[in-house]
Amino acid sequence: MTSAPYTLHYAPDNASLVVRLALEEIGAPYRTLLVDRSARAQRAPGYLALSPNGLIPVLETPQGPIFETAAILLWLADRHGCLAPHPDAPDRAALLKWLFFLSNTLHPALRILFYPSVYIGAQREDQLQLQSVARHNILGHLGVLDAHWRQVEPPLLLNIYLGPTLRWLKLYPADTDTAWFDLTALPALHGMAKQLETRESVAKAQLAEGLGAHPFTAPRAPSPPEGSAV
Amino acid sequence: MTSAPYTLHYAPDNASLVVRLALEEIGAPYRTLLVDRSARAQRAPGYLALSPNGLIPVLETPQGPIFETAAILLWLADRHGCLAPHPDAPDRAALLKWLFFLSNTLHPALRILFYPSVYIGAQREDQLQLQSVARHNILGHLGVLDAHWRQVEPPLLLNIYLGPTLRWLKLYPADTDTAWFDLTALPALHGMAKQLETRESVAKAQLAEGLGAHPFTAPRAPSPPEGSAV
Repeated sequence: MTSAPYTLHYAPDNASLVVRLALEEIGAPYRTLLVDRSARAQRAPGYLALSPNGLIPVLETPQGPIFETAAILLWLADRHGCLAPHPDAPDRAALLKWLFFLSNTLHPALRILFYPSVYIGAQREDQLQLQSVARHNILGHLGVLDAHWRQVEPPLLLNIYLGPTLRWLKLYPADTDTAWFDLTALPALHGMAKQLETRESVAKAQLAEGLGAHPFTAPRAPSPPEGSAV
Repeated sequence: MTSAPYTLHYAPDNASLVVRLALEEIGAPYRTLLVDRSARAQRAPGYLALSPNGLIPVLETPQGPIFETAAILLWLADRHGCLAPHPDAPDRAALLKWLFFLSNTLHPALRILFYPSVYIGAQREDQLQLQSVARHNILGHLGVLDAHWRQVEPPLLLNIYLGPTLRWLKLYPADTDTAWFDLTALPALHGMAKQLETRESVAKAQLAEGLGAHPFTAPRAPSPPEGSAV
């Protein structure tokens, strides 16, 4: 048995899904360790030593533990020379600006929508107002992305980050009506998501995390073999 | 007269300040173009063609316009081989995880604090509640950063991003009491900010944007030679 160079700390259908897709696309050996969210394992001292904000995922690497989904993606892409233009390529600038946009604008808007108490406190009425504006903002961000995706074929790295966000918008928060989000109204992103579902990496992630047959275009609540998504 | 390879679209004391510091540190020729926020020039069609979200800064480069502060920083560092570990360096992982943390956690929390209406709508009471929680979250993020900055000497790229955020927390929103933020309670970040103020790049940015003698440790409202900060 050879030891894998990477260990992915994951929870089913969490942001770690993005990193799992990257690892599958690269074909690098890795092992996974479940972060048991039902036991709040992401707040345990051992986990906080890897990820000081208690966020999932962490990827353990020969350069130490890396947190932040997009940081892991970019580091893996550069190290393995795939998924995205390399640092000297003429389209590197485009990669970076859209990767940071996904990471610091779209993804935080999803966090506000899914975890409103973190941003506004415990009052339900405040949370509903925050979520209402977040949905409006997310549709704006997705409109910008759809317009750009219509014009160019972005690197796979961006699509494997964006695909799961489209899934989560249809599923979470689990106790709310997500009819506001209609992927077919975003034709370029819908087409991208359909393409993504044909990839072997996605098939493997589906099995590992119980994501169903059409995880991006027709998502259903996950039924993972271990752990819980929330 | 040689033409500069870079054009920075900036507004005084905006996020463009971070990119100006990077360009000064690199020593690359650049010209600046004021984005007149008082005339909402950041929403003009010509500007939106460069920056589809109307955000400042944009850097025009031989690879086209780049938006997103952190994307510009990383692209410049890699292109010029300075400010941060290069893509093959053993400390690249650490650079990326903290750069994305600044970009997608700390910086968005500042945006919530400074522009609450974007996130919660027009009701003043809602905005005050959102800002109150944002201040709490920002102190948490800065605590994580201070703990890490105590242990290591981070690359200059991270400090020229973090320094201005410490300034802005003491100055903005301009109509509020910022006594809640005390940089001296964060000794590692305070020491870093003092060091940063000794750099030639900071002296040049002070003059160009009217930032005062101690822009990070004792900030005062800017008095820029052109344009307006808000």
